[in-house]
Amino acid sequence: MWGGRFATPPSEALAALNNSLSVDRRLWAQDVRASKAWVTALQDAGVLDSEEAGLLHGGLDRVGDRLSGGAEAEATDEDIHTLVERLLYQEVGDLAGKLHTGRSRNDQVATDLRLWCLDALGPLDEQIAALGAALVVQARAGVDMLLPGYTHGQQAQPVRWAYVLLAHAWPLVRDRDRLADVRRRVAELPLGSGALAGSSVAVNRDLLRDILGFRTVSANALDATGDRDFVAELLFALTLLATHLSRLGTELVTYSSTEYGFVRLSDAFSTGSSLLPQKRNPDIFELARAKAARTLGDLVAMVGMLRALPAGYSKDLQEDKSLLFDAMDAALVTLPAVRGAVETMQPIPDRMQSALRETLLATDVADELVGEGVPFREAHGLAGRLVREAEDLGVSLRELPAERARKIHELLPDVLGRLGSFEDSVERRRTPGGTSRASVEAQLGALEQAFAVRSPTEAAT
Amino acid sequence: MWGGRFATPPSEALAALNNSLSVDRRLWAQDVRASKAWVTALQDAGVLDSEEAGLLHGGLDRVGDRLSGGAEAEATDEDIHTLVERLLYQEVGDLAGKLHTGRSRNDQVATDLRLWCLDALGPLDEQIAALGAALVVQARAGVDMLLPGYTHGQQAQPVRWAYVLLAHAWPLVRDRDRLADVRRRVAELPLGSGALAGSSVAVNRDLLRDILGFRTVSANALDATGDRDFVAELLFALTLLATHLSRLGTELVTYSSTEYGFVRLSDAFSTGSSLLPQKRNPDIFELARAKAARTLGDLVAMVGMLRALPAGYSKDLQEDKSLLFDAMDAALVTLPAVRGAVETMQPIPDRMQSALRETLLATDVADELVGEGVPFREAHGLAGRLVREAEDLGVSLRELPAERARKIHELLPDVLGRLGSFEDSVERRRTPGGTSRASVEAQLGALEQAFAVRSPTEAAT
Amino acid sequence: MWGGRFATPPSEALAALNNSLSVDRRLWAQDVRASKAWVTALQDAGVLDSEEAGLLHGGLDRVGDRLSGGAEAEATDEDIHTLVERLLYQEVGDLAGKLHTGRSRNDQVATDLRLWCLDALGPLDEQIAALGAALVVQARAGVDMLLPGYTHGQQAQPVRWAYVLLAHAWPLVRDRDRLADVRRRVAELPLGSGALAGSSVAVNRDLLRDILGFRTVSANALDATGDRDFVAELLFALTLLATHLSRLGTELVTYSSTEYGFVRLSDAFSTGSSLLPQKRNPDIFELARAKAARTLGDLVAMVGMLRALPAGYSKDLQEDKSLLFDAMDAALVTLPAVRGAVETMQPIPDRMQSALRETLLATDVADELVGEGVPFREAHGLAGRLVREAEDLGVSLRELPAERARKIHELLPDVLGRLGSFEDSVERRRTPGGTSRASVEAQLGALEQAFAVRSPTEAAT
Amino acid sequence: MWGGRFATPPSEALAALNNSLSVDRRLWAQDVRASKAWVTALQDAGVLDSEEAGLLHGGLDRVGDRLSGGAEAEATDEDIHTLVERLLYQEVGDLAGKLHTGRSRNDQVATDLRLWCLDALGPLDEQIAALGAALVVQARAGVDMLLPGYTHGQQAQPVRWAYVLLAHAWPLVRDRDRLADVRRRVAELPLGSGALAGSSVAVNRDLLRDILGFRTVSANALDATGDRDFVAELLFALTLLATHLSRLGTELVTYSSTEYGFVRLSDAFSTGSSLLPQKRNPDIFELARAKAARTLGDLVAMVGMLRALPAGYSKDLQEDKSLLFDAMDAALVTLPAVRGAVETMQPIPDRMQSALRETLLATDVADELVGEGVPFREAHGLAGRLVREAEDLGVSLRELPAERARKIHELLPDVLGRLGSFEDSVERRRTPGGTSRASVEAQLGALEQAFAVRSPTEAAT
Repeated sequence: MWGGRFATPPSEALAALNNSLSVDRRLWAQDVRASKAWVTALQDAGVLDSEEAGLLHGGLDRVGDRLSGGAEAEATDEDIHTLVERLLYQEVGDLAGKLHTGRSRNDQVATDLRLWCLDALGPLDEQIAALGAALVVQARAGVDMLLPGYTHGQQAQPVRWAYVLLAHAWPLVRDRDRLADVRRRVAELPLGSGALAGSSVAVNRDLLRDILGFRTVSANALDATGDRDFVAELLFALTLLATHLSRLGTELVTYSSTEYGFVRLSDAFSTGSSLLPQKRNPDIFELARAKAARTLGDLVAMVGMLRALPAGYSKDLQEDKSLLFDAMDAALVTLPAVRGAVETMQPIPDRMQSALRETLLATDVADELVGEGVPFREAHGLAGRLVREAEDLGVSLRELPAERARKIHELLPDVLGRLGSFEDSVERRRTPGGTSRASVEAQLGALEQAFAVRSPTEAAT
Repeated sequence: MWGGRFATPPSEALAALNNSLSVDRRLWAQDVRASKAWVTALQDAGVLDSEEAGLLHGGLDRVGDRLSGGAEAEATDEDIHTLVERLLYQEVGDLAGKLHTGRSRNDQVATDLRLWCLDALGPLDEQIAALGAALVVQARAGVDMLLPGYTHGQQAQPVRWAYVLLAHAWPLVRDRDRLADVRRRVAELPLGSGALAGSSVAVNRDLLRDILGFRTVSANALDATGDRDFVAELLFALTLLATHLSRLGTELVTYSSTEYGFVRLSDAFSTGSSLLPQKRNPDIFELARAKAARTLGDLVAMVGMLRALPAGYSKDLQEDKSLLFDAMDAALVTLPAVRGAVETMQPIPDRMQSALRETLLATDVADELVGEGVPFREAHGLAGRLVREAEDLGVSLRELPAERARKIHELLPDVLGRLGSFEDSVERRRTPGGTSRASVEAQLGALEQAFAVRSPTEAAT
Repeated sequence: MWGGRFATPPSEALAALNNSLSVDRRLWAQDVRASKAWVTALQDAGVLDSEEAGLLHGGLDRVGDRLSGGAEAEATDEDIHTLVERLLYQEVGDLAGKLHTGRSRNDQVATDLRLWCLDALGPLDEQIAALGAALVVQARAGVDMLLPGYTHGQQAQPVRWAYVLLAHAWPLVRDRDRLADVRRRVAELPLGSGALAGSSVAVNRDLLRDILGFRTVSANALDATGDRDFVAELLFALTLLATHLSRLGTELVTYSSTEYGFVRLSDAFSTGSSLLPQKRNPDIFELARAKAARTLGDLVAMVGMLRALPAGYSKDLQEDKSLLFDAMDAALVTLPAVRGAVETMQPIPDRMQSALRETLLATDVADELVGEGVPFREAHGLAGRLVREAEDLGVSLRELPAERARKIHELLPDVLGRLGSFEDSVERRRTPGGTSRASVEAQLGALEQAFAVRSPTEAAT
Repeated sequence: MWGGRFATPPSEALAALNNSLSVDRRLWAQDVRASKAWVTALQDAGVLDSEEAGLLHGGLDRVGDRLSGGAEAEATDEDIHTLVERLLYQEVGDLAGKLHTGRSRNDQVATDLRLWCLDALGPLDEQIAALGAALVVQARAGVDMLLPGYTHGQQAQPVRWAYVLLAHAWPLVRDRDRLADVRRRVAELPLGSGALAGSSVAVNRDLLRDILGFRTVSANALDATGDRDFVAELLFALTLLATHLSRLGTELVTYSSTEYGFVRLSDAFSTGSSLLPQKRNPDIFELARAKAARTLGDLVAMVGMLRALPAGYSKDLQEDKSLLFDAMDAALVTLPAVRGAVETMQPIPDRMQSALRETLLATDVADELVGEGVPFREAHGLAGRLVREAEDLGVSLRELPAERARKIHELLPDVLGRLGSFEDSVERRRTPGGTSRASVEAQLGALEQAFAVRSPTEAAT
């Protein structure tokens, strides 16, 4: 492609470092599509006549067909653009040499990569919604299952199983919202920017934008060819998504332990051990945690690479694709596995119930004292002393002898006497977003709509 | 605050690790503001009567006054919330104990931090716009200055000085757009979420939202108290912003070198050396590069900390604030310095002009051949051979003897004969976003509006 | 310091970004010490006479005295070196102007920072050893406490409590070994390198090395002044150390939950909740996890900053100190807190014992079959079916009716009949590093020596 | 491998996430080697008789032969261990089922990976030494070439070309030293640790250590199976190495620009442009910069993944291999390319010489004043004013009229009159590590030995 200027060909060591076909091969469909749009624009600008354009369109289609079947798997071209151009020469002869008129690798690869992102964002969004829906379906079935809610890994207040699952569903709503913002910024078309200074052919960039489905055209060619903000931003959105899966995963690893036992993973989504015959391992959730670390690594590499580059294209940018592909692959392989594990896991309400300790009601004790006019801060301290006293005696709160309770505060025996059930406690938190049935039902309704959850009836048809 | 439950006080080693007042002291204004909103909500819910509410409002105002003056600099409370509450006791006595009714540190700190972000985003946006405006003002003066444009650090095509500066202005437009998206997601109110399960007081959360200027209320209290996505997202936006400054900085470090000499930094924005008397160092731009690395480090710490946490509050989250403050401080100290350096730097058009090499027109040679019907790919190869030939002879393109040029292609002597000036070359790229005067003028117009650049007349008034 | 070259002083915006005194003030002792060594070297080289040297030594000592008391807390000098030099002028007058002869900020700050590291490494090592000793003391008391060992968060095989604790002690041995390697590379003296090219004064660098306690002198001044590998390497060692604390922390957070209940944290090393009166939170271990993420962020910032810098000093390097101080502070505040929590935590052997499930012996079943000649792979499959069968019936392995067991393999009823206790199982693993008493005792002995654990008798004296 | 325990096979989604053969296939040689050592240990322990051991050795050799030829490229086994075991069944039948006796995937994979690291460290070290040697050879030829030395990207003092190159060679010495330390910690043998608790077979681990060439055996099986510190540490060493290449690369990108023009890259190690015929791009050095960012990303992923894991094996650890392979591949593909570019680049001493500005001697002016008794700090200020005065008049230092110089200081005209050449200035810095010929020759000698540089005569034979 650039041999004319040099007396000797590139060394093997250079080629080994420089060639990117093994990575950017995945852009073949975008490269063909953008090249066809470019043909149309060149014809529109009078650079190609209609016959030439027709031949090039046909040739590019055949190149696409060859590549879609996985042909040229052993090709050793420098990159996918070179491969497509070489195949086009095979299809249409020297006419292929006109395709690159007014275009540069720099605007070409930026366009291909943005197209790839746009193509990938749809399926990604669907996978996130599907996981959200799976959480919501499990949650719908878990409204009446009570379990301890935790902060700092310690029992804090009783909550509904539905409520815990929904706490992991809402972050997915944010992920989808964030990805929609990313898409808006991805959809700026660089094609027509040339190498750095714009194209010497007066192509109609709005035409290109419409053909390729972009929102707008880039405003400065030097910026457009050296800009990879969109990759960094997509990687960040994937990092947060992966982080959300890691948080869900950590929680379910804990809950599927023998000691908690709140859920049991299905056989089809568990793994065993090569040595320990009894193991039922939550590998999926562990790998979800690891993928979050890995995706963060991809983001670090991408931003690190951009730092301190001048405007315009530098070869450093070539490394962007393997990072992006790695992170997107991680998301697309993790989401279905996590979803399957969530869909098929079996909650064990008996274990949840038996885990509830009466100290979970300590805040209710304080609240009751507040109802009697004790300032909260004092009531909190009294309830704390009550817990300590019961702990020292090795009894539950209600079992504490009345005189002992009265020593702490004269109202405490009464308060303890009318202390309600865990269900009562859960229903006390009626603010929007709280644990009460009404609040949880409202969340379920909103999320079923957001994730387009199909009812069992619908699903059956 | 939580002594009732324990027989012994916290150890010194625990306090040294755990106490966060030295960091979260900066949230004092938000803590007072959110506490006042909470008083209003408690009164609305009937928990406080109007006299109590009035006393608490007055007390909190006085606490705010004391803290705004930097009082209590030597306080050793566990955190800012404890300090505010302790001061409130000093102001209103035991009534202070009612403030925390139905509220938790978990929803309180999440609210304070979101408020802090909302407060910080405005000034940040202004600083970015001011830097953008400075770039545009310099660009407006640099439309007629031509210099080499670079890719891979090598001369590529001639461009306008304005054009280079604008390539660094457009990323700031994206930064502001991105920060507006971040703001939308920051503005979800957690207050009323309690510790994890919602508040036991039926406060009107919509009222709180309106008082505190949030967009909406959080949907799930377990999520809302353990969610720090907004911090991570703001840190990411700051990381990309810092990366943009690092790219501008790198380019200006290069251009202010003796060898390039395209710009000269002003005395007021340069530094010298303790040993080398002649030095005029671009410290600002170097520090801008370093701050980008540091902000990325803050992001890594934040996301790393979130990874694999269960839903709900864990103490790990306490580290969020120092990361966020560090990154925001970096932005707010870097932006004015970079802006000042940009505003006062002096372009040296003579050095720019003298740096232009005739090989910058090699693409124009190829384009001319294309105009004569040679397919681009072949024309590119011919122009490459021309460059090599001239290089071997040690002459410029136009100096190459005609017979030598003709040996490469018979049309080349003619093409070289009519090869235009660098200005001609710059004007050839007329696509939107290209180097032509019209395109650059259009960009200037758009960015002057975006950054609200004041004309010199306006600025004088 | 460098005003002569400029017509106007630095702008406020530049100073705000550039000045580093608030961070590098911590180097004051090293700066004074290295300056005194420099005085000696200048005298040795004949640049100062003995009277001048004496005056400068005295002046620097007095400057050190002033700074050690925290004086000059409100100083606004550019950095600590400027402050020290300014104070020295106050002490000895114009003679102070001779101190910087043949020296540069570049070799000065590199020397100060390496000295600071050398000073910090000793106390760090002691703190790590102290934590190691605390783990070993707890382990010594826990040799006879059996509990489930976990992989993938699932019960795997029975182990000793001592054994688990020692698995967290060995990484500390590696940390100390690694830090010793770091120290070797830190101890290369840059002083005498000047700004980039060596010193114009023929100082005896070996003399400087001996005075300041370095191992060797740097070999190339351009490298020595721009090298911060030692900071990066120390940050990495701190990152791994913090990661080890995070792993210990995670495990103890789990074990101190209500559901596991294997350990109970002491009051003095637990925290409570502002809302939930009953909470006993393991904040220390959560913060240890968070500090690991933060230290990694510091490392990322440091390495990111070094990437793509040319050789020699660039101002980017100024950011190194706040990263290093942050990470070292994190280590030095976390280690004592974790150690205290470990020293005072109370193991609950009853809960450990009651958590042991008979399926932990499934591998022993397979091993017994192997002893009867069944190839391990087949034996493993048979034991797996046994577990499934028992699980389906809701019985323990030994409770499985003999005819059911025989259907899986004829030898199984016999094997189940002679299945031993958990203690037997633990004693089966007698390879070095295994769970047997002998192996654990051997580890204890080795680590008591490594961490210099004092016996109770010694400790009392 | 673990089917017995489950009623249904793993789902496709689980397999897609979980299977690692595409990555860990690269461990095949290590897996076979470690398995053969295990056979020997099992025979030594009496678990296998000599005939069985012989058959297994033969079978494993044949499995190795099959895999070394790239057979089984389409295998779909879960991982390399499963593949090797399956092939072994094909070779020796049911006897293969005895191989895994007393061994676990957990100690197996840790052993394989450590073996892989040990195997990789040798070639890596050779490649680093080869690059070091290439720098030294270029440096030996560049002792007499003077050029400006830079700090902050600004001309600072004159230096030798050799000196600059050696500043990039010394970091490679540190890299090799660091990697030797890493090797020591890698060489701890985990085999015999079982899944977490040691092996139930009393294998002789010292025998295994000797066969496999490790330094020592691991001390605690729970630690040994969950420890990946060695991967993190190797990744860090690779990150610093890559950072060093990025610093060299950045400097050479600058020096190969038209504006500097100090070096010219060879054709075989340059690349061209698809659009711009004249380009000679330093892609290798740009990619070296990018690989440093990428390797840092791998490190972040690895450490991030380890953070907050409990002791022992968790599936998260499976992601370690792709990170390590990515970073090692990056090093092994970058080092030869950078070396080739360094070996074949051509220094342009004329351009270096013509870049030298007289202000590079400003420190010498100050030093001369010091020689006349002016304190350095004052002399520095005077030299700075001299530079400013000359700059204002647009003349060089020596061209400044004597009366102007005398106004600044009466001695200045004399000092300027005897100001030496750039060579004189370079020779002034005679401290070890300075720019003088003697110092540079000493460095060359030391590094020729360190990198075993062959003389041209030796190389020819």
